[in-house]
Amino acid sequence: MKIALMNEFSQAGKNPIILEQLNDVAGELGHEVFNVGMDGDNDHRLTYIHLGIMSGLLLNSNAVDFVVSGCGTGQGTLMSLNAHPGVVCGYCIEPSDAYLFAQINNGNALALPFAKGFGWGAELNCRYIFEKAFTGVTGQGYPPERKASQVENAGILNDVKAALAKDYLDGLKALDPELVKTAVGGERFQKCFFEHGKNKELEQFVRGVIDA
Amino acid sequence: MKIALMNEFSQAGKNPIILEQLNDVAGELGHEVFNVGMDGDNDHRLTYIHLGIMSGLLLNSNAVDFVVSGCGTGQGTLMSLNAHPGVVCGYCIEPSDAYLFAQINNGNALALPFAKGFGWGAELNCRYIFEKAFTGVTGQGYPPERKASQVENAGILNDVKAALAKDYLDGLKALDPELVKTAVGGERFQKCFFEHGKNKELEQFVRGVIDA
Amino acid sequence: MKIALMNEFSQAGKNPIILEQLNDVAGELGHEVFNVGMDGDNDHRLTYIHLGIMSGLLLNSNAVDFVVSGCGTGQGTLMSLNAHPGVVCGYCIEPSDAYLFAQINNGNALALPFAKGFGWGAELNCRYIFEKAFTGVTGQGYPPERKASQVENAGILNDVKAALAKDYLDGLKALDPELVKTAVGGERFQKCFFEHGKNKELEQFVRGVIDA
Amino acid sequence: MKIALMNEFSQAGKNPIILEQLNDVAGELGHEVFNVGMDGDNDHRLTYIHLGIMSGLLLNSNAVDFVVSGCGTGQGTLMSLNAHPGVVCGYCIEPSDAYLFAQINNGNALALPFAKGFGWGAELNCRYIFEKAFTGVTGQGYPPERKASQVENAGILNDVKAALAKDYLDGLKALDPELVKTAVGGERFQKCFFEHGKNKELEQFVRGVIDA
Repeated sequence: MKIALMNEFSQAGKNPIILEQLNDVAGELGHEVFNVGMDGDNDHRLTYIHLGIMSGLLLNSNAVDFVVSGCGTGQGTLMSLNAHPGVVCGYCIEPSDAYLFAQINNGNALALPFAKGFGWGAELNCRYIFEKAFTGVTGQGYPPERKASQVENAGILNDVKAALAKDYLDGLKALDPELVKTAVGGERFQKCFFEHGKNKELEQFVRGVIDA
Repeated sequence: MKIALMNEFSQAGKNPIILEQLNDVAGELGHEVFNVGMDGDNDHRLTYIHLGIMSGLLLNSNAVDFVVSGCGTGQGTLMSLNAHPGVVCGYCIEPSDAYLFAQINNGNALALPFAKGFGWGAELNCRYIFEKAFTGVTGQGYPPERKASQVENAGILNDVKAALAKDYLDGLKALDPELVKTAVGGERFQKCFFEHGKNKELEQFVRGVIDA
Repeated sequence: MKIALMNEFSQAGKNPIILEQLNDVAGELGHEVFNVGMDGDNDHRLTYIHLGIMSGLLLNSNAVDFVVSGCGTGQGTLMSLNAHPGVVCGYCIEPSDAYLFAQINNGNALALPFAKGFGWGAELNCRYIFEKAFTGVTGQGYPPERKASQVENAGILNDVKAALAKDYLDGLKALDPELVKTAVGGERFQKCFFEHGKNKELEQFVRGVIDA
Repeated sequence: MKIALMNEFSQAGKNPIILEQLNDVAGELGHEVFNVGMDGDNDHRLTYIHLGIMSGLLLNSNAVDFVVSGCGTGQGTLMSLNAHPGVVCGYCIEPSDAYLFAQINNGNALALPFAKGFGWGAELNCRYIFEKAFTGVTGQGYPPERKASQVENAGILNDVKAALAKDYLDGLKALDPELVKTAVGGERFQKCFFEHGKNKELEQFVRGVIDA
């Protein structure tokens, strides 16, 4: 599995701590990690708005299979990611959240709080969350006897989002171009997106934004 | 302030407990509560998908100012509500979440877990969450010195959602009509929506669905 | 009610934040606060061991009615305070803990984590905990129908502690004198203890330690 | 490692759930589990007071190396266990608590809440707590650079408890004999204690209580 980690400006300084935990856990499980947001250098200011755009592009192009993100409380990131079609982002503050979200909602992104409650033990908590998020078969329901209705509702949610949203590319074109330009401006993001993305239209769109 | 409470089928039995807490807190603060989802009778099966549609209609018509909702973990409800334009839904497991969401994100809905972690003290936790969600001035930022950028980002998120979404009424019409019919089928929902809604187009749409 | 706040060295820098919240809440409720541990100056190194001795002296002399304490995780403080007869200390990480402990265990001390989970919102969490710890009648049981057995067990616990412990003064004399000397060495502690304590034997003991 | 699990009456019905998780985790790690409290049958009423006596006997006789216990909130059990010399019991509501307690306090018992917050995912949370409590080397400090002072304080706490307490056997004899009789009355407790205990005096004491 390919996993993107993305941090915004307000907690950018914590990126190295979180990346270390994610690399450790993902490495043991044979997953690949792409650190595509801010890495503490503060050279390229991203907000949770940009993280949503980046997540939409990476997931809808199949450049990555999963996004780990967050902000101060995680709530802005959570809403920003879920605004995009094809992104199914849960909120996660402890390991069992990750397990339940994987079994019940079977999403492809998590938003974590990187300032709220982030004190001693926070890096451990991240590690334990990652362990439960990326181990085992997902979508099995919880409790298991509710699997059928939970899988059904997860599918209906995707249909609802698709019905309410514009065609994805039309939606991207309706966004403020400056937002998109900043979102796709990072070198590490571009490397991940262009090397692993599998959607020509999205690639063309992003190239057009960069060249504009 | 008008506050709608809505519970879906999987935790419908907890509606009376939550309603009692919400009524107590809201009553003291001079807010009005509308219990528009399942109330434990199980006569009218609603899932988190329906809660999203109901929230969109109530908030976009200004029938209510705020929605309190949830499901087993709260995550399905969270994503379902946020799928709709005009709904800004946070996830809340303890009182400080409610405060931070009100100050930073200034949203109009909360999703709570009504099965996960719901044991002794859960009704207290709901009460304390409601106390912090509905007291005081919102949108002041946290920490306060970040107010400007937090208010700005909350505004941009609304713009992004609007850009990615169809016109709201077009979106509603693109939904599976059976979903909408069930969502608006409850007597208590209809009473709240028709008596307090202020949007003629949405009212016409809902009447059309009911009469179909 | 008289409430002592005491912080040890590892999180001494957080004393002003916690004191502010406690003063705000206690002030509104008509309680008096005594800040008897480290206040951030680091001039007088106290560990959780000393906090236990201080709590035993203040509570057993009725100088104060309640102690708020903590350390990095709160666990060392918790065990240190509970080692002393007459101290009934609960662990508290969120507001409902404070309420449940007050109703079920009706103790006279709380230990909080001041580093673990201490990030954005931590001062709010402290405030909300204090609100629930110091409002209303305690010892009413939770759920209420279990009051009788809960009150009974709280009483038996005190008997058990008394049976297992030496006479309190004998126990104090068996402690390493250097520990006691440091514990009672602070000016603010002494002021609280000597002005409000009501136990002549304990007062004599402490004066003896100071003069030794 | 030998691990005793003990549940009291108020949450006895949850013993099978917790035992299953503990057996799974301990089994993989090569630890042995003894289920010495109530197992749901309600045939032998134990309160948290009895759990404290049982823990003291099992740990001080080296019949077991670790005790997992709890009650509704866990707080009564926590204080009851810590009342006994030789028992160093932490409070644990999530996996990182278990890790931090093992590294900082290096205790031999944990108290968990088995009603408070015990809803969906509670059995997962227990499992994850056990994973972190029983894996790896303990007593390494957290953060690691504080190891020396943390190990020192853990040692001093033991000295303080010993100074304040009577000799353990004298303390046991000072307890209400009915409490002790009930505490040691269970068949599974006796099997664990008599087969694995290594302290002749404690064994004689318990045999005397049983025969009285």
